[in-house]
Amino acid sequence: MTELLTPIERVVRALRRLPGVGEKTATRLAYFLLAAPEPVAQDLAEAIVRLRSDVVLCERCFTLSEQSPCPICSDENRQRRQVCVVEEPADLASIEKAGNFTGLYHVLGGTLSPLDGIGPDALRIGPLLERVRAGEVDEIILATNPNPEGEATALFVAEQLRDSAVLITRIGFGMPLGGDLEYIDRVTVRRSLENRRAFGA
Amino acid sequence: MTELLTPIERVVRALRRLPGVGEKTATRLAYFLLAAPEPVAQDLAEAIVRLRSDVVLCERCFTLSEQSPCPICSDENRQRRQVCVVEEPADLASIEKAGNFTGLYHVLGGTLSPLDGIGPDALRIGPLLERVRAGEVDEIILATNPNPEGEATALFVAEQLRDSAVLITRIGFGMPLGGDLEYIDRVTVRRSLENRRAFGA
Repeated sequence: MTELLTPIERVVRALRRLPGVGEKTATRLAYFLLAAPEPVAQDLAEAIVRLRSDVVLCERCFTLSEQSPCPICSDENRQRRQVCVVEEPADLASIEKAGNFTGLYHVLGGTLSPLDGIGPDALRIGPLLERVRAGEVDEIILATNPNPEGEATALFVAEQLRDSAVLITRIGFGMPLGGDLEYIDRVTVRRSLENRRAFGA
Repeated sequence: MTELLTPIERVVRALRRLPGVGEKTATRLAYFLLAAPEPVAQDLAEAIVRLRSDVVLCERCFTLSEQSPCPICSDENRQRRQVCVVEEPADLASIEKAGNFTGLYHVLGGTLSPLDGIGPDALRIGPLLERVRAGEVDEIILATNPNPEGEATALFVAEQLRDSAVLITRIGFGMPLGGDLEYIDRVTVRRSLENRRAFGA
């Protein structure tokens, strides 16, 4: 076997570090990038470089943004007394895409995970409590994920806020739209029964 | 929805042009690139740029390489009178990885596909015939893929070489190693029966 194609091998190696990309996918993508029109490869390389140079953490909500405070925290038209607490910036982006939330956010930066050594101090819970104590907030919506870590984190944050006057809510759980009772997991079915609402309400 | 995170959106857009990458995968990869150690993103961007600047077509076998002639065509230790005909450079790379072929290659650059307007002139069949006519070759191994286009292309190339003294062979077809007769497609089963060999031979 003659050693060949170092530039392609280099791209394959770099792509393989991405999550979910194995050798076959990386090879396919590398040959695609080689054959594609110049801007496809050029734009990607440039976007990756700028991603790292242009993104900062918002000093208020700790999301990733081009500026600090981020456009959401700076937006005077948003409902500023409602704060949605999420684990990661990607969760924030997902809620923004849903389009029906007009309040502000607070990004924890993960979930409590004692086994991985992630305690409350590793998350941005302190700054959240400060925002509440400063009297800026009427409602905290706990939007951590519906898994054990997310639930534990929501519970912990709620505990910390127990003595404040703020309203604490949790996002609703139940059947996903388009879901099928036949195939959905039983925990979700159980939750959707517990969370039933008066029809037409 | 406040517009946010232009650098991330830019990476997502660039990634979505890759085959098999949808919005969810692109978003996941973008956040991964943002959070990963600096070299992961940096190496990828650099590798993509160098992919485009450093790769050329080999003037003899038409594979992609950093130099022309490519290291395989330049390698005097290879069996130079045996030429394996493949569709694409990725096929060549796959055969090289298998490690038991020591001859040279010829990359056609695709397959005949009259419906897409790809006739013999769009492939590098002419240069292959020239290599044979120049008396450089004893055996042509047709290693186009086992699908209708690959078969038609192999047949066409074989036709063109009919009057030459060169030995023309086709790669073997049958059960893939680790395959299971219960699940394999019937065309492969049929081929593997046709291609049976004396046991122990």
